Amino acid sequence: MSELAKDTTEDKVLNGVNVDGIFRAIAIMSCDAGAAKFQFRNRNRWITGGLNRSFVDGFYGACNEHTRETPFVLDNDEPPVLLGEDRGPNPVEQVLHGLAGCITTTLVYHAAARGIRIDEMETSFEGDLDLRGLLGIPGAKRNGYEEIRIKVRIRADDATKEEIDELVKLAERRSPVFDIVSNPVPVKVTVDF
Amino acid sequence: MSELAKDTTEDKVLNGVNVDGIFRAIAIMSCDAGAAKFQFRNRNRWITGGLNRSFVDGFYGACNEHTRETPFVLDNDEPPVLLGEDRGPNPVEQVLHGLAGCITTTLVYHAAARGIRIDEMETSFEGDLDLRGLLGIPGAKRNGYEEIRIKVRIRADDATKEEIDELVKLAERRSPVFDIVSNPVPVKVTVDF
Repeated sequence: MSELAKDTTEDKVLNGVNVDGIFRAIAIMSCDAGAAKFQFRNRNRWITGGLNRSFVDGFYGACNEHTRETPFVLDNDEPPVLLGEDRGPNPVEQVLHGLAGCITTTLVYHAAARGIRIDEMETSFEGDLDLRGLLGIPGAKRNGYEEIRIKVRIRADDATKEEIDELVKLAERRSPVFDIVSNPVPVKVTVDF
Repeated sequence: MSELAKDTTEDKVLNGVNVDGIFRAIAIMSCDAGAAKFQFRNRNRWITGGLNRSFVDGFYGACNEHTRETPFVLDNDEPPVLLGEDRGPNPVEQVLHGLAGCITTTLVYHAAARGIRIDEMETSFEGDLDLRGLLGIPGAKRNGYEEIRIKVRIRADDATKEEIDELVKLAERRSPVFDIVSNPVPVKVTVDF
């Protein structure tokens, strides 16, 4: 499966994606379901108030453990109006960032596999939240986003409007984070004392 | 509503949270539902391959528009095995980071409101993903996480085991990102040409 990452001069690259790598991945995972199993992880430490810090490092996938040379360090905080000091985006903003990245990467990779060159792509997001849910005040429909609206702007000079529309629909249908947000994920919590 | 953010020397602070600020928010939002309405936003630009960049700046909440002095800039990328160059955590890892932050902040704020001092808190996350979903290979249960497992470690020397257990359950019940991940959020996509 390290074959997947191979980026030789012979490999075709489109949209900055190794297209032959995508087809190698599809070929390998089509006959070996185990190669498609990934496990992503995070470790987070509370610092004070709304400030906490995540360390993103190892993950399992393509039949191997992977580590980064240096873990990614990411901070959450809250803005002053939510009693924090704005030392990082807040957790619901982080979710929009993950959703943006996932839709974008899904679209760009699938476009590369279809031979469609993307020239530019921008997305913008709005999510409505009723804070009464978090605070336990009656009246909120729910605690999380009531709705998320996404605007996608794409320039792909060699593609038709229909091809672009179909790519956006494909990104919605295939994106892991789009699925996580749109459909229920079972979450199991255990407490260590 | 700027009252909310006020941090005077008279205000009680516990766990780094302005406890009087929490009770002011509850009082205001209990009689004015409009004050509880928030809208968070994100703007993302694709760079190349799996690399894209989010700008997190303004949001609406507590009856006002808010901006940051400097927008937060966050990158998504993919590791080499997923054909990226590891210039940032990937989108499904970002979701675990948002979930971690939200559970932690929800717990710490509610503990402060209950007068419970938290001495330390760490969480760790695992999420199982079958990449066949993203790639459109038949056989995956779904495209996103099949399950997320969370381990919570808390030290709260003055609290009983029962109080800590109840705080963890409250965090699950109240956390916006826990709700977003556990339950379906309607997502509406429009394409601009």
